[in-house]
Amino acid sequence: MPSVMTSFTDCVAAELNLVNQRFTEELSSDLRCVNALVRHVGRFRGKMLRPMLVLLAGKACSPTGELTDAHITLATVVEMVHMATLVHDDVLDDAELRRNGATINHLRGNEAAVLLGDYLISHSYHLCSSLESQFASRSIAHTTNQVCEGELLQIHNRNNLDLDEKTYFQIIRRKTAVLCAACCSLGAATSNASPAIVQQLETYGDCLGTAFQIQDDILDILGDASVVGKTLGSDIHKGKLTLPMIHFLRTAPLEHRTLLRSLLTSRDADKVDQIRNLILPSQSIEYARDYARQLVDQARKCLADLPESEPRSVLEAMAEFVITRAV
Amino acid sequence: MPSVMTSFTDCVAAELNLVNQRFTEELSSDLRCVNALVRHVGRFRGKMLRPMLVLLAGKACSPTGELTDAHITLATVVEMVHMATLVHDDVLDDAELRRNGATINHLRGNEAAVLLGDYLISHSYHLCSSLESQFASRSIAHTTNQVCEGELLQIHNRNNLDLDEKTYFQIIRRKTAVLCAACCSLGAATSNASPAIVQQLETYGDCLGTAFQIQDDILDILGDASVVGKTLGSDIHKGKLTLPMIHFLRTAPLEHRTLLRSLLTSRDADKVDQIRNLILPSQSIEYARDYARQLVDQARKCLADLPESEPRSVLEAMAEFVITRAV
Repeated sequence: MPSVMTSFTDCVAAELNLVNQRFTEELSSDLRCVNALVRHVGRFRGKMLRPMLVLLAGKACSPTGELTDAHITLATVVEMVHMATLVHDDVLDDAELRRNGATINHLRGNEAAVLLGDYLISHSYHLCSSLESQFASRSIAHTTNQVCEGELLQIHNRNNLDLDEKTYFQIIRRKTAVLCAACCSLGAATSNASPAIVQQLETYGDCLGTAFQIQDDILDILGDASVVGKTLGSDIHKGKLTLPMIHFLRTAPLEHRTLLRSLLTSRDADKVDQIRNLILPSQSIEYARDYARQLVDQARKCLADLPESEPRSVLEAMAEFVITRAV
Repeated sequence: MPSVMTSFTDCVAAELNLVNQRFTEELSSDLRCVNALVRHVGRFRGKMLRPMLVLLAGKACSPTGELTDAHITLATVVEMVHMATLVHDDVLDDAELRRNGATINHLRGNEAAVLLGDYLISHSYHLCSSLESQFASRSIAHTTNQVCEGELLQIHNRNNLDLDEKTYFQIIRRKTAVLCAACCSLGAATSNASPAIVQQLETYGDCLGTAFQIQDDILDILGDASVVGKTLGSDIHKGKLTLPMIHFLRTAPLEHRTLLRSLLTSRDADKVDQIRNLILPSQSIEYARDYARQLVDQARKCLADLPESEPRSVLEAMAEFVITRAV
């Protein structure tokens, strides 16, 4: 976990341990080969952002600051949903890699990844259905419907150099923000918060998730690979237009726009560097940063009606973190 | 739909229409690109065996012979689950094809298929969570957990020439039979059948599903491709040992066993024909047929405590059909 996140986890450290326990328990099988595969999921585990949103929203809305077992269950469910999307994203990304040379190893990994993602999503619904009411099951399934739609819309617009901002936001809201929104609203609802507060927490999560994705997009162009810990420029390689590029293609001088369009479709090995050098001096990174900043301000305002508390402060700090992070 | 099935559908024809309607309604999206992809699912639609099991079990257990809206919902849910597994199976099968020559078209189809399968499974849970009680959600998610395990166990044992009968049955029960069992038990439970009757219907579905898979395995070796409508010998090409082959490798003369082992690992273009000609004169096909026959007898016995009725007769006939079908 990045060290900057650690300060956020103190407030829910004990509960995050319970989430990890439940995660492992729910996924354990009587089949050795299944358990061996599930252990690989470990390598995807990251910031635990989504479980933290459930737990912090729950604590911030709980009059006693106490959480219930249902909060732990839900926090585990959203982590499983997120892991499932990562595992299947990996299949789609592996597919990319294979374009430059398919190997049987890649292929075998692919098959297992499809099934492992299915196993994770099935267990997330299974765990969710252990709760007394259908409320969370409905919310989670409605959320995953939208996540799938976001992914499909993204694939549909691959290599679409005319992607507009409206469609871009449709993609990232469904792909990323709705799950963050569901984390916060479910955490709050499980603490019996009023419908108005549940709605505010949902908007908080929606804004935070959208800002998170914009920052991801910025880092993919500007980030330091040694810090981010993954190959950068992957949006460019995958033909995914992101907010800075969309802005650039709308506002930059014609000659620069034409150059970016030709770079995006070129097969140059160093096209990511060329695109970076083209966009960096423009206003387009700043435009995306401003957009994300406004979303974070809106997110923080959604917390105004909550009583002051440590979990509320952490939620405020997390909103800042998503756009200041370098990882 | 194969014409032999049509006689079974009369009894639930009106309800099957409602299932088709609900299927389409649940999957419709505000995104055009999603709807365009969902239309492709049509090409996978087949016998509607699983929805029929829900509806027939429900009717056979209903004192008035009437079904509720919950039956229609559940019948739609199981069809969606089944479609999702077919779509993801297709990804795994595409992967096979690509071993002999990857193309970008295959790859793009693959990505969409992963996401389309996810979309279907998400909507199946979403639709299921619209029911009042969590009972069905738990049962469906528990079932899909096992389906994933069966698929993973199958992949794990690919090219394992020492696969034993016990593991083979573990695979096909989880992969195929548990969903049929859940169809029957959910149909019966939704008609408020007694726990004993629900259990008997579950066993009926389990035996029927297992027999169905054994017949699939037999057809893969013996079937007439022009009748079955798909490439045969795919189990052999995928390194999947099935019941006739397992029996052969245990009981045939040493020399024949050695020949089968070498054929299974060979790259001969006509190895399927060679294997067919080797197994056909042995007792191994008959052994698998007997096994399936016993399961069907057991399935029919499970219906004995139900009052005589048309749906009960159709359930009996369906059990016969799964092992006599040539398609």
